[in-house]
Parts: sequence; C-alpha cells; structure tokens
Amino acid sequence: MKIRLLAITQPLVPDIQNCEQLIEYAGRKCTNTCSKTGKDTARFVRQRIDESHLTLLEHIQFTFEIDGISRACLAQLTRHRIASFSVQSQRYVKQNNQAVVMPESIKNNPFANMIFEHLIEYCFSAYTKLLDAGILPEDARFVLPMAICTDLIMSMNLREILHFLELRTSEKSQWEIRELANQIKEIVHSYCPNVI
Amino acid sequence: MKIRLLAITQPLVPDIQNCEQLIEYAGRKCTNTCSKTGKDTARFVRQRIDESHLTLLEHIQFTFEIDGISRACLAQLTRHRIASFSVQSQRYVKQNNQAVVMPESIKNNPFANMIFEHLIEYCFSAYTKLLDAGILPEDARFVLPMAICTDLIMSMNLREILHFLELRTSEKSQWEIRELANQIKEIVHSYCPNVI
Amino acid sequence: MKIRLLAITQPLVPDIQNCEQLIEYAGRKCTNTCSKTGKDTARFVRQRIDESHLTLLEHIQFTFEIDGISRACLAQLTRHRIASFSVQSQRYVKQNNQAVVMPESIKNNPFANMIFEHLIEYCFSAYTKLLDAGILPEDARFVLPMAICTDLIMSMNLREILHFLELRTSEKSQWEIRELANQIKEIVHSYCPNVI
Amino acid sequence: MKIRLLAITQPLVPDIQNCEQLIEYAGRKCTNTCSKTGKDTARFVRQRIDESHLTLLEHIQFTFEIDGISRACLAQLTRHRIASFSVQSQRYVKQNNQAVVMPESIKNNPFANMIFEHLIEYCFSAYTKLLDAGILPEDARFVLPMAICTDLIMSMNLREILHFLELRTSEKSQWEIRELANQIKEIVHSYCPNVI
Repeated sequence: MKIRLLAITQPLVPDIQNCEQLIEYAGRKCTNTCSKTGKDTARFVRQRIDESHLTLLEHIQFTFEIDGISRACLAQLTRHRIASFSVQSQRYVKQNNQAVVMPESIKNNPFANMIFEHLIEYCFSAYTKLLDAGILPEDARFVLPMAICTDLIMSMNLREILHFLELRTSEKSQWEIRELANQIKEIVHSYCPNVI
Repeated sequence: MKIRLLAITQPLVPDIQNCEQLIEYAGRKCTNTCSKTGKDTARFVRQRIDESHLTLLEHIQFTFEIDGISRACLAQLTRHRIASFSVQSQRYVKQNNQAVVMPESIKNNPFANMIFEHLIEYCFSAYTKLLDAGILPEDARFVLPMAICTDLIMSMNLREILHFLELRTSEKSQWEIRELANQIKEIVHSYCPNVI
Repeated sequence: MKIRLLAITQPLVPDIQNCEQLIEYAGRKCTNTCSKTGKDTARFVRQRIDESHLTLLEHIQFTFEIDGISRACLAQLTRHRIASFSVQSQRYVKQNNQAVVMPESIKNNPFANMIFEHLIEYCFSAYTKLLDAGILPEDARFVLPMAICTDLIMSMNLREILHFLELRTSEKSQWEIRELANQIKEIVHSYCPNVI
Repeated sequence: MKIRLLAITQPLVPDIQNCEQLIEYAGRKCTNTCSKTGKDTARFVRQRIDESHLTLLEHIQFTFEIDGISRACLAQLTRHRIASFSVQSQRYVKQNNQAVVMPESIKNNPFANMIFEHLIEYCFSAYTKLLDAGILPEDARFVLPMAICTDLIMSMNLREILHFLELRTSEKSQWEIRELANQIKEIVHSYCPNVI
C-alpha cells in the first residue's frame, strides 16, 4: 500500500494563509468577524469542532493517490459515499502485474501461506488462459481473487475524513483499511493539526 | 440473479392514490394547485420530467432485494452514491454456498468453461483449507474470486433510478449490471409508467 | 404550522410486516439471517443503532407536508442536504394570503406586537402596489418579510431524521424549527418506536 | 454582489502542474496510463466530458466568497445540495448595515422605486425598534425583507459547478442568481478553460 497526497485546497488571498485559517475565515463569516482571522486560529478551530460546527471542515478537500490495496479493501472504501473515486478499471486494463495483498495472518502461517500463493498463481494463470482463449478482460476478471491489488485516486473533504478516521482507525475495523486510515491520518494531521 | 421489490413509498392520505399522484401533489405544491391533483396525473408528470424538474421524483423511494450478483457487479453498483446498500458481509459470513456468476462468453466457450470451473473449485477449496488452518473468514476471503455471488438490499429514489437506468441499460454498460438494470426498469415501470 | 405525514415506505412482501421489520431484514441480510426476521425486532433494531449501523435506517423514507412555516425557518430546514424539498415558489405564486409567523416573544410584548403587525401590513401593501405597477411577483417578493409563511413537501430518510431531531430538538435550536422537529418526532415515533 | 475566489484545489506533486492536469491524471488512473499526463491535457479532458465521465471533475473544488446577495437568491443557491455553505447568521448578527438588493425592474420604475425604498426603510426601522424593545435578533429578523443582503462562503466541486452553470446561466433562471452564475463561470473558466 502506498499513499501519496496529490492535491489539497489552497487559499489564494493574502488574508488566509493556510487550510486552518480558511476554516476559521468561513466560521467567522457566519458571525461577521472575518477581519480577526489568523489571531488565534488553533483555538477558534477547536471550539467550532467542539460545538460540532463541522460544515466548516467541508471547505478543505484532500486528493490522495492510493496504490496497492486489495479489492476487498476497495469495496469497504467506496462505501464512503461522500467522496470521489477514480479507480483502475478491470474491464479495460489487463492485469499483467500479478500484485496481490497477503493478510498478515496468512503470511505468518506457513501452511496457509503455501495455499494462498498456489491459489494466486493459479488464478493469474487461469486469467491469462481465458484472455488467450479470446475472452475479454471484463469477463476474464471473474476469476481474479479479492486479494488482487488496485490503484485509485480519492478526493474527500475534511469533514468526511474526520468521520472516516473515526470509523476506520478503530480496533473493530479491518487491518487493511485501518492501515490506510492511519496513513491518511498522519498526512492530514500535518496540514490540519487542530482538526485531526 | 434474482430481484424482488421489497418496499415502496406508499401515500397515506385520501387525496393521493399512488406514487405518480404523490409526484404530482409535490409538483403542485410549488404552484399552490394541490387541489387539482389526480385530474390528469400522466400529463402533469411527463411535463415536469420534460422540464427537468427532477427533484419531484426523489419523493418516491424503492427498496430492492438483489440476490446472486457477482462482486464485480457489486463494485459497479455501489459506485452509485445516492443510494443505500446493506450487503452480505464476507468478513463475518462464511461462504459455504459456492454460488458464482459465469459470464456468457465463458459459458459458450468449452475451453474457457473448463478453465473457469476448475478455477472456481480450486478457490473454494483453498478458502475452506484456510478456514480449517485457523484463518478468519475476513482474511480467508482474499482467495475468493470476483465471480462469487453476493446478496444485498438496495434503496434508491426514483430520480437516481432514472439516472441509473440511463447509464446502465445502455449498450456500453457491462452485461451483468445491464441485466440488473433491465429487471429494475420493468419493476419500476409497473409503478410509475409515466416516469420510466 | 401544520404537519401531515403524506407517505411512508411500505413493505410489500409477507415476510416483512412494518418499517422496523424492514430495517431488521436489511440488517439480517448482512449476516445472512433474514429468515429470523420478526422474532424480536425491537431488540435487533436497538442493537444496530447502539452499534451505529445507521445505514439500515436509510431504507425507510418519510414524506411530510409542512404548511405555514416562516421563510426564516425554511432557510434553516433546507440546510439539511440529505432530504428532498418541493417548496411553494414565490417567483410564480402571488402571495395573496397574508399569512405570517409571529414569534412568541413579539406576541407577548404589546409594543413589539404593534410594530410587527404594522410592518407586516405595510409589506403586503407595498407588495400589492408593486404588482399593480407591473412588477413581476419574482421581483415584488423582495419586499416580503422573513415572517411570511410558506408551504412545502419534504422527504427525508430515517437516518437523516434521527440526525435532524438530534440537532433541532435541542435547547440551542430556534423555537420554530424546534416545534417542527418535535411534531416530526411524534409522528415518526408512532411508526418506529425503537428508533426514535 | 461581489464574488472572490478564496481557494482552489492545488496539485502538490511535480508530475501534475494544474487543475486540468489533475483531472487528466485521475482519468488516466482508470486506464493505467498516468505517465502520459500533460502531453495533451486539453484533448483528454474534453473527451472525458464528451463521454460524461464527470466524476473526474469532482477532484477539483473551488471556494468562493459571495457578498451582497439577497435572501431570495440565497434560498435558490442553497437548494444546490452538493455544496458547502457558511452563511452569515441573522440569528446572531445584528443587521446594522441596511444593505439590500434592488431588482432592476424596480430601479427602472420611479413609482415602484419609491415604494421599495420606503418599505425597506420602514423594515429596518421596525427591526431596530424591536431590538430596542428587548426582542432578540433571531426574532426581530422576522420583519426583515427578502431583499436584505447576506454574505457567505461556498465550496463546490467542478462537476456540480458545471451542473449549476447549466441551470443558472439559462434564460429561465432569475436575474440575480444568473448574474452570480455568470461571475462564477468567468472565474472558473480562467482555471479550467477546457471544462467550462
């Protein structure tokens, strides 16, 4: 799994220096006190979050490149509906690269490890044979395993990121999406330390 | 694939007899002419759609039970974000039932057919061995193929259904989600013949 | 203010008797235990809410007719974006009916009461004069006061209703939308007593 | 009316130079051809829009400061639900500034003009008297006219902007929101000339 921050909301005016000041400016618009922006942004932002005035966080959007997650993880990720996804298409892209995600529990169990590796090899071999037999990628992919890696671009606003992190960094969350959530948390924290 | 209409928006007041009259009533609320509802509903509804006054359609919601679609199809389906999904969990439910979706192109090609059937059998065998080796279902499922069947409940409002059908009944759409869309179209048509 | 429940999601199959059983059925779809639906729905529904499995509530949608709220209240109401609104148009409908909402604090203060009543009368008189002078309703309405009554249809799913009630029945909420929220709460409670 | 672009999605990596290249990069992610980004961005972006692959546009978000629109216009604007609004609160902010929007049709009609100006003056006078009588701003505002100016911050992604402009720059749209839409169009065009 490799996460890269591709883009972020960038203020363009001199009275707003960074993301948290944009949150403050929007919050101060509601009370007609924009001119005070930047005096004590940290405190202002924390107070709004404590009051659950979370709409303010929607003005900040992050765009991530997420490479090498399993289709199982993707299915969980795309259940977050307040986000935008551009996902590598298995209908049109031939899966030449045999990259897969192997769960730790399987990696650490020699017997399970062996079963897993044989199965994956067999899946890709079947996939290739189906293509050779004239089956289109969109149908051949039915034999690919859930472990197969996929790449995507995801944009999510800061309010939904907060909600995503709350759900997905929890202990009940599955390990793969938890790892993803933790990496996102670290990135977002460096831009918005008073939110995350 | 088996689709069943589980529930639909039902008017509760005597002045509104059915779904299309509810659409009309909401439309007439905008122009303060509710008392005319039911005189010529078909024409009223068609005119609003021609004018793209589509919000009116959001007052009608359908709930479908969709059984036996592949994970490949599910991934396409859940990309429609203005809808609500309750999907069978592969994390918690053991996949004892070896149901899969086989594409027509594979069914009609004896060699591809053989490859496919062997592969599926091998996947389920590996899945069972992983469970027997103490791997949890949430990790064992990484060896399951995209062809595996899943069941779900989906609620979607009539405006989004219209948009869904426009995209998914087209020739460019993949055969499995196109079949799903066509079945949904037929069901919805019987309730809202002037919309669909 | 007058609220009427116009429509609600209605199950159509014999194994689901009411809204809460539909929530249960959808929840049991996730764990492949649908056949147990109806045995102890109250407990099942409460447990899912305790676990924050709130997507299940989205399968139930309510449609309300809301008559006689102020434009001030409407502005707050339409900030709830996960809902569908059909609102009486001030662009196209002439406001003959001089209905307004008078806040209690003004009603109970004889001086304020007098100011208010004179002002409202003056507004409608100006509005009528503008129409008589050939100004279109869409421009004449600029002199109408925020107190003016409006009517609308609103559809909202049960998850968003839960969120709406949490925010709008609180003491910090304004009295008019709080009254609206309390009436909605009572209606929804009678259909889904284990949710609300 | 005064519109200012406060912030915009900004790429952070060397292989993506501007907004349209980010759209291209996301589009190329789907077909695994990211490395070609920047060769002929204009053509790529136009083709995706022609194919209605509009999700790609959601990766770009604009944040506008919109000052001096009427409450009538605000009500239309906030009906666009796929957007984030931070609006000056009439509950908490005293409306000292008597700024209003006067429609052209009224401005150009001396009799209507006089009616309008007297009415507005009377409204603000009543508002002030109510405050002086101890009525809170949240109740006193019921006498304010729809013409009153409000300020807000709005964030909207490029896909929704495209939809917004389609609806609101049309001849059927009201003049005030049409003027707003035209100003937004000009701003967005300078950043994404191949989209708008």
